[in-house]
Amino acid sequence: MTEVHVHGPHATVRSHGFEDEVAVEEPLEIRVDGAPLAVTMRTPGHDEELALGFLVGEGLIDGPRRAEPTLEANTVEVAGPLVREPSARSFYTTSSCGVCGKGALEEVAVLSEPVAAGPVLERALLADLPERLRQPTFARTGGLHATGLFDPSGELVCVREDVGRHNAMDKVVGWALRQGMLPLHPRVVCVSGRLSFELVQKAAVAGAPVLVGVGAPTSLAVRLAEDRGLTLCGFARGGRVNVYTGEERVR
Amino acid sequence: MTEVHVHGPHATVRSHGFEDEVAVEEPLEIRVDGAPLAVTMRTPGHDEELALGFLVGEGLIDGPRRAEPTLEANTVEVAGPLVREPSARSFYTTSSCGVCGKGALEEVAVLSEPVAAGPVLERALLADLPERLRQPTFARTGGLHATGLFDPSGELVCVREDVGRHNAMDKVVGWALRQGMLPLHPRVVCVSGRLSFELVQKAAVAGAPVLVGVGAPTSLAVRLAEDRGLTLCGFARGGRVNVYTGEERVR
Repeated sequence: MTEVHVHGPHATVRSHGFEDEVAVEEPLEIRVDGAPLAVTMRTPGHDEELALGFLVGEGLIDGPRRAEPTLEANTVEVAGPLVREPSARSFYTTSSCGVCGKGALEEVAVLSEPVAAGPVLERALLADLPERLRQPTFARTGGLHATGLFDPSGELVCVREDVGRHNAMDKVVGWALRQGMLPLHPRVVCVSGRLSFELVQKAAVAGAPVLVGVGAPTSLAVRLAEDRGLTLCGFARGGRVNVYTGEERVR
Repeated sequence: MTEVHVHGPHATVRSHGFEDEVAVEEPLEIRVDGAPLAVTMRTPGHDEELALGFLVGEGLIDGPRRAEPTLEANTVEVAGPLVREPSARSFYTTSSCGVCGKGALEEVAVLSEPVAAGPVLERALLADLPERLRQPTFARTGGLHATGLFDPSGELVCVREDVGRHNAMDKVVGWALRQGMLPLHPRVVCVSGRLSFELVQKAAVAGAPVLVGVGAPTSLAVRLAEDRGLTLCGFARGGRVNVYTGEERVR
């Protein structure tokens, strides 16, 4: 018999004398003016940022909106209006997978201006960003992805964690929206994992000039970053980093 | 200027004298009798297994179907009939996130019998399974998740890789369907990453008694495994493994 006790973003699992802390994963329904729009599996906390960041990434809002999370019901209610009708795409993009690359390339081109030139950063600084990502809950559970927003000087401005790496990115973008920091330029985004197409897309729509990851990029992530003029850096660890696109921003 | 040249499941990225191999990520549209059902971002290869395994996980087919992939168009055409009408859920489950936990718990209870008792395995064998997951493409790109199917003796029966960990699982399930190996019992599934709710669900629907992961489980993964009677093992590395649920199958 195994029991799971949830407390905040982590939970205690107890079974036959064995005990461990794990990351909490629960569904969140994002509603707009009372109508369900999308469901995502997320780690509770910063739900209003998650909802707003998700809507920014979808091109559905272009400024702050009122967002009221109800933790018990796992819902977050966002006040409209949306700037356009949501499409089936809204469902796909709760995923690490699900969106047609071609369609999304076109959509992001509509949604966002090409990323502006600059800043120019030291390669050693980019390689060091993952070290500067403080992950309080990860240390306990080993189960969370993190996204950090950094000043060009390398100072951490905001960090968010989630079982879903796209959620961690959405939370940072939602936070930045509320701070009046969108587009993100000249700030730099760093993620704790691999670099998928979807993460590059979210970074590009939010106007980030540089995206750094601890892990590997995919082919489509590289192609989208090249297309949008974004600097994409992977395998940032041990003082080294690979620069896949936009090398003009790296010194 | 960065160029990406795709060859099979990996691609070569060239930029300013820098060269690296990355995993290929491209959209795949799953069609049933000509009608689009879902889009997933996947690594090309074994597309027919991916489509069939996805449909098994959704409870949409319960036996083999003809499946014809067209690599150039990134589509796979599956011949019906489906055993029930697809719901909006079909779109959600292309994701690492997107499905309502409560709804899915109920759905999986409808779709699948509780996992049968046995087999009983040595703890040391479970801890060693990730070592036995051979990942040919990962070694080149560092960007792929793997799922392996093992006999109770620890012999690798089938392994599949993908940028999406759910796709790797779907490919193994689709392979097993074609081999007449469903339900998977008494075989054991091992994944190269973390253990989400969605992965436990796919394993449970396919009838796997044991799911082992190199990484951490989430709270909902543990709860679903407990509910379905599945043995869930995490952090399998360095000769050790945590058993979160179903310890009666571990000696």
